Amino acid sequence: MANVTILDVIGTKRDGGELSTEQIRWFIENFTAGSVGDEQASALLMAILLRGMTPSELATWTTAMIDSGERADLSALGRPTVDKHSTGGVGDKISLPLCPLVAACGAAVPQMAGRGLGHTGGTIDKLESIPGWSPEVAGSDYARQLRDVGAVICSAGAQLAPADRRMYALRDVTGTVESIPLIASSIMSKKIAEGAAALVLDVKFGSGAFMTEMGRARELAETMVGLGEANGVRSAALLTDMNTPLGYNAGNAIEVTESVEVLAGGGPPDVVELTLALAETMCELAQIDADPASVLASGAAMDKWRSMISAQGGDPDAPLPTAPHVERIEAPSAGHVTRLDARAVGEAAWVLGAGRARKEDPVSASAGVRWFVRPGDRVAKSQLLFELHTEDPERIPAAREALESALVLGDAAPEPTPLIAERIG
Amino acid sequence: MANVTILDVIGTKRDGGELSTEQIRWFIENFTAGSVGDEQASALLMAILLRGMTPSELATWTTAMIDSGERADLSALGRPTVDKHSTGGVGDKISLPLCPLVAACGAAVPQMAGRGLGHTGGTIDKLESIPGWSPEVAGSDYARQLRDVGAVICSAGAQLAPADRRMYALRDVTGTVESIPLIASSIMSKKIAEGAAALVLDVKFGSGAFMTEMGRARELAETMVGLGEANGVRSAALLTDMNTPLGYNAGNAIEVTESVEVLAGGGPPDVVELTLALAETMCELAQIDADPASVLASGAAMDKWRSMISAQGGDPDAPLPTAPHVERIEAPSAGHVTRLDARAVGEAAWVLGAGRARKEDPVSASAGVRWFVRPGDRVAKSQLLFELHTEDPERIPAAREALESALVLGDAAPEPTPLIAERIG
Repeated sequence: MANVTILDVIGTKRDGGELSTEQIRWFIENFTAGSVGDEQASALLMAILLRGMTPSELATWTTAMIDSGERADLSALGRPTVDKHSTGGVGDKISLPLCPLVAACGAAVPQMAGRGLGHTGGTIDKLESIPGWSPEVAGSDYARQLRDVGAVICSAGAQLAPADRRMYALRDVTGTVESIPLIASSIMSKKIAEGAAALVLDVKFGSGAFMTEMGRARELAETMVGLGEANGVRSAALLTDMNTPLGYNAGNAIEVTESVEVLAGGGPPDVVELTLALAETMCELAQIDADPASVLASGAAMDKWRSMISAQGGDPDAPLPTAPHVERIEAPSAGHVTRLDARAVGEAAWVLGAGRARKEDPVSASAGVRWFVRPGDRVAKSQLLFELHTEDPERIPAAREALESALVLGDAAPEPTPLIAERIG
Repeated sequence: MANVTILDVIGTKRDGGELSTEQIRWFIENFTAGSVGDEQASALLMAILLRGMTPSELATWTTAMIDSGERADLSALGRPTVDKHSTGGVGDKISLPLCPLVAACGAAVPQMAGRGLGHTGGTIDKLESIPGWSPEVAGSDYARQLRDVGAVICSAGAQLAPADRRMYALRDVTGTVESIPLIASSIMSKKIAEGAAALVLDVKFGSGAFMTEMGRARELAETMVGLGEANGVRSAALLTDMNTPLGYNAGNAIEVTESVEVLAGGGPPDVVELTLALAETMCELAQIDADPASVLASGAAMDKWRSMISAQGGDPDAPLPTAPHVERIEAPSAGHVTRLDARAVGEAAWVLGAGRARKEDPVSASAGVRWFVRPGDRVAKSQLLFELHTEDPERIPAAREALESALVLGDAAPEPTPLIAERIG
C-alpha cells in the first residue's frame, strides 16, 4: 500500500469519487496508528459527511474499523449470544431489565456499553449508582460471567475497535457526528467486534432521540442491519418513538429503581412493552424458543439481575443514593396532557446533574427528573407534574426553565401513537 | 461574541447555511490565536470547499484575514503604488523585469513574494541565485527602498495576514487547497494588506497552471478582482495561457539571465509581450501616463533593476551559478512542434533541483531546463531540443522521463493561440 497518500484519499472523496478498499484500509490503519494527522482525518470525515459513502465503501470501512482491534470469539461459550444496542433516548433504561431477562431466556448477552453524553443517559452511569458495582471486568472474569450468569454489562476494553474510539472523539469536536454512514460504522464496528452472533437495534426517532426524523432513523436502521448481516451477525432493528420519555424517571439511581420494578413484575407499561418486544426479537434472532413475558413473570429475570450485579461487585439490596434537594412542579391549570417533550425532560435531568457536558465530567447518582403524568392523562389544577432531584439547588432554576414548555395541556386527550413504529430486518 | 462556538460555525456551513459576520470574525480571530484546533478548522475548510461561500461571506472572510495582521499604509510615499500577482506558471519570471519596469514608469511596486512549491518556481528562489541578494528587508529599509528605488521584492513579514499563513499550511496537508473562495481570499488578503492602491492579477490557465481550465481561472479572476475593488484596491486581471512554458528557461539562475535579456531590450517575445501587457495595465490602474515599451527601450528599467538588486545586497554584475552537469536531448525525427507541455517541463525542472517538494527543502540555483524550440517551430532530425542542468547527475533519468512526452512533433505547424486570452475588470 506504498502508493496511497492521505491527499489522494481526501481528494478522491472530496471530488465525489469512491474510495478503494486499499485507500480505506490504508486510512483506518494509519489513522489508528497516529500517522495520519487529526486535521487530515477531520477533512476526510467532513468530505464523507457531505459526499456520502456507497454501501460497498461503507462495508469495507466498517470491516477495517473492526480489524483495527480484535473481534471476540464467543463460540466456546456453549450458548447462543445476542446483544442489543439503543441509539439513545431520555429515560431509556431498557438494557437494565432486558439483559438479565434475555439471559434468563437462555442466551448470553455480552453488552459493552458507554457512558452518557448530553441529554441522553448512559447505561453504565445508571448502574454505577448501585453501591459497589464496577463496569470494569477483566478478560477471564468476562468469559466466566457470560457462561455462568449469561449477562455482562461493562465498559468496552481498548482492544474493541480502537479506530472508532479515536474517530469518535474527533467527530465530536469537528461537527462530523451527524453522518449516517459514520454513525452506522461507529456503532456496528464495536457491536460486531463484541462477538455476539445476533444483534437487535433499538433505533429511536423523535424530539429526545439523536435522529429526530423517522425517515433518517429508518435509513440508519437499514444501514446498520445491512452491515450486521454483511459481517455474519443476524440483525434486526425496531424503530421506536422517542418524542415522549420512557417510563416516569430520567436520571441514574431513579432509573435503576424503575428497572427493578419491571424485573419485579410491575413498572411503567411502556418500559415493559419495549423490554418484551426487544427480548422477543433477541430470542428469535438467537434461535431460542422462550417466552420472555412468562420468564419475566416467573421471577427468573430478577434472579439474573441480582447475579449480574453481584458478579460485578454490586450489592443488589443496598439502598440507592437519594437527592438532598427535591423541588415539585404542579399543574397551573386543569386539562389533558397532549405532549410531554422528551428532549426538554432530558435537558432538565442533565442540568440537574444526571448527565455530563464533557466526557471527563462526573455525574450525580441521585439527580434527575421524575414525572407523574403521560400524554393522554387528565390532570387537575395543582396536581403534581414533576419532581426535580439534585445535589445542588443552584441547578434548579435552569431545570425549571428547561421544563417550562415540556408539558402541554389541552382540551382533549391526543390520539395515542404506537411506541414501536416498525421493524427492519 | 461570547455565543459563537466552533461547532455552530462548522454546523452552519456543513448544513449549507451562510456564515454570519460575527461567526466569520470569531473564527478567523480564534484560529489565528490558536484557540480553534487545526482539526476543527480543517473540517470547516472542507465544508467551505464543498458548500462554497456567497460573495458577501467571502468579502467578510477576506477582510477578517486582512485584519488578523496589519494593513500597510503607503500613502506617505508620494508616488502611486501598484503591484502584480501571478497564480504561478512554468518559466514565469515576469516579476523580475516587470517590477523595475513599472518603477521606471513612476510607480512604487511593493511586492511581497513567496517561494516556489511543486512544479512552479518562486520569484524569491530565482532572485536568491544572485550572489549577495537577500529577500529579508527591515521595515525602515522597505519604505526607503520603495521611495528611492520604487520597487522591492521581498519575503512577507509575519504581520501580513497571519491567519493566511496558518491556514495555507493547513490547507496544504488537508486537501483543501482547491477552493476558489479560499484561493481568492488567501491571495487577496495578503495583497490587500501589502498596501498598494492598485493590483493587476496574472491568472493562468492550462497544463502548467494551478487552474487547468480557463473557466475556473476566469471564476478565480472575477472573484479576486471583486475582492480587491470591495476593499478599495483598483484591480484588474489578465487571463493568460500556461499550456506552453514562458520563454526558453525554467529554473532559478537561468531565468534571471533571461529576465536580464528582456531588460536589455532582447529576450523571448512571449516574455516581452506579457511583461509589457502587465506593465501597461499596472500603469493604467496606477493612473500613470507612461509607455512601458519606450521606458524598456530607454534602458531605464535596467537601471532600476540594478538599483533594486543592489539595495538588497545583490551584485547585479556577479556571474550566476552554472550547473556542473548538462545533458542534451535532440530531436528523434524532423517535424513541426505542435505542443510543448508546460507541466512536463515544470516537473523536469523540479526533479533536477530547481524546485522543492517540502517548504523546508533547499533549491538549487543552477538547476533547470532550457528548451530551444517552441510550438510552431520546424525542427530537423537531431536538432537540440532541451538541455537539462543539474548539480546531481542522478536526477537526470527522472527529468528525461518527465520530458518524454513534453514535446510533440507533427506534420504541420499548429494554429497560433493568443498568450493573453482575456482581461477581467
